[in-house]
Amino acid sequence: MAKSKQRATLRDVAKNVGVHSSTVSRVLNPKTRDMVSKDVAKHILKTAEDMGYRANTFAKSLKTNQSFTIGVLIPDITNPVFPPIIRGIEKTLGPAGYTTIFADSDNNIESESEILEQMRSRQVDGLILATAHLVDQVVKDCEADGIPFVLINRTVDHKGVKSVTNDDIEGIRLAVEHMVKLGHTRIAHLAGPQNISTGFERHQGFLSSMKAFNLTVDEDLVYFADSFSEEAGRKGMATLLDTGKPFTALITSNDMLAMGCYDEIDDRDLSFPDDISITGYNDMPFVDKFKPALTTVRIPHYAMGEAAANIVLSMIGQLDEPRHSVQQKPELIVRRSTAKAKT
Amino acid sequence: MAKSKQRATLRDVAKNVGVHSSTVSRVLNPKTRDMVSKDVAKHILKTAEDMGYRANTFAKSLKTNQSFTIGVLIPDITNPVFPPIIRGIEKTLGPAGYTTIFADSDNNIESESEILEQMRSRQVDGLILATAHLVDQVVKDCEADGIPFVLINRTVDHKGVKSVTNDDIEGIRLAVEHMVKLGHTRIAHLAGPQNISTGFERHQGFLSSMKAFNLTVDEDLVYFADSFSEEAGRKGMATLLDTGKPFTALITSNDMLAMGCYDEIDDRDLSFPDDISITGYNDMPFVDKFKPALTTVRIPHYAMGEAAANIVLSMIGQLDEPRHSVQQKPELIVRRSTAKAKT
Repeated sequence: MAKSKQRATLRDVAKNVGVHSSTVSRVLNPKTRDMVSKDVAKHILKTAEDMGYRANTFAKSLKTNQSFTIGVLIPDITNPVFPPIIRGIEKTLGPAGYTTIFADSDNNIESESEILEQMRSRQVDGLILATAHLVDQVVKDCEADGIPFVLINRTVDHKGVKSVTNDDIEGIRLAVEHMVKLGHTRIAHLAGPQNISTGFERHQGFLSSMKAFNLTVDEDLVYFADSFSEEAGRKGMATLLDTGKPFTALITSNDMLAMGCYDEIDDRDLSFPDDISITGYNDMPFVDKFKPALTTVRIPHYAMGEAAANIVLSMIGQLDEPRHSVQQKPELIVRRSTAKAKT
Repeated sequence: MAKSKQRATLRDVAKNVGVHSSTVSRVLNPKTRDMVSKDVAKHILKTAEDMGYRANTFAKSLKTNQSFTIGVLIPDITNPVFPPIIRGIEKTLGPAGYTTIFADSDNNIESESEILEQMRSRQVDGLILATAHLVDQVVKDCEADGIPFVLINRTVDHKGVKSVTNDDIEGIRLAVEHMVKLGHTRIAHLAGPQNISTGFERHQGFLSSMKAFNLTVDEDLVYFADSFSEEAGRKGMATLLDTGKPFTALITSNDMLAMGCYDEIDDRDLSFPDDISITGYNDMPFVDKFKPALTTVRIPHYAMGEAAANIVLSMIGQLDEPRHSVQQKPELIVRRSTAKAKT
């Protein structure tokens, strides 16, 4: 703290008690406290508290080569899917003695590299990356440098990287199956960016499940958004409607994209689900408040955060058992944005 | 980074080039680079890059007693009002060379103290607190320790503390005036926690504007929520309706509270604005997507973040001019949740 008052050091406490500073050090560490007699330990702890002694994590970091900090890269802090993931990470790392540093790349690849550089210079002990592209420079740099890291939500196209992801192919299959059961056959797809695993896998899931249900994919009714954003969703909806080709159902690759579709359909005097049934993906907070409440594929946000935090803790030797990559099962949440196809 | 490879030090670079390490240090600092001849500087920069030299912020921190880190305490990361504030903070601190550490207290006072303790031990250069209570231990501790800090959104009940707030009395006056113009006279109030400045000021604003419009405040139609959360809002709406007393308008103290009212009114087969007109406060993202879209008081999230970041930068000597406390002007955003009173 740049301008804070001078603090009592470990040496000050030792001098005050009249013991060697290594004795104070032993007492302050719960693991070695037993090496010192109970009465002395008690006296030292009391004195340290009275003198306002506080461990200097910086000095400790230099000595142990650990910063007790985990960096988390988020692609878009304004996407409500991330706060519950963040909370799951924090609530797991905190009790383990680790502070979480968050940074938001605002979907900008250059920012990601800059943030990584900052975090490296701050010597984070590990990283949780929610920003990965299928081919990802930040991931390559982390691998080259041997920094412990885990990917969350999105993964990369090569093996050996730990990750917490969802079965996105199954998630989209659930959405397509739901539409088919409601009688829809003309199904459009608003796909996400294809250089990100979630966008890619969900598109693959769309293709494979349409095939499984013997439905034809009309290429004009597949739109690839360039980002998982409301604006991109709105543009996608406009483009799909402007084809003039009829469709009664729309599978979107993400709730933010679906939200953009709500904007566009309002402007055109059409409505969900009367004219078109729509599904989202993520079950982010607040989509249950939209009218119509959005039918979507739920991913377990908080649990994903917990799992990623535990993997990174295991990688830096803080857990007894190793933690492996996790692929979570998605769940379809049916609300009011989907309805029977009109015959 | 705990497990990363050994890196080239400043001394390694100096040895390789054949100069003293102070020369390398001068070249690496843009402010002192001119002290070294252009050709030598160029050669040193190239060598440093080739050797993968990276400044050790930790070592630098111990020397300069600065960590180039600002801590930000958020009361509830799942409240969508905060991400745009966070983005304003980040986008201002980043270019100034400061990394932002976020932590989320989940509205828990004990967590706030723990987080502060962690941030202090990591020697943050300054703090931005969005968590303040009117009487606040964390603020007192920061003052006692002389840590530069600024409050955002909420403030405390004594002077001399820098803050970025909104004119909450004026904000509520705008909402009450809007209801009065629509012909409402039976106006209920869902107030926030009274130990937080925003909750307190908005309640005061309700009382003073009702008086200014010659309207009677029915004490049974004022409910005090114990937190700014959806559940508390739902409970408040239920309590107000259960009084059996008629009211045609409801001024809430925050959008999260208003959101809880939407849940409760749905369950009772009543609707906004047909049965009751409702206003929120904050204009957080997504309230324009609700049906009916919420009429609310807009506060300038991103600009608040920027202003707080600039104040803290000025406090730690990073800006030429001092930055003073800011009180922003709120703006009423009229949407569909308010309508003319039925006669």
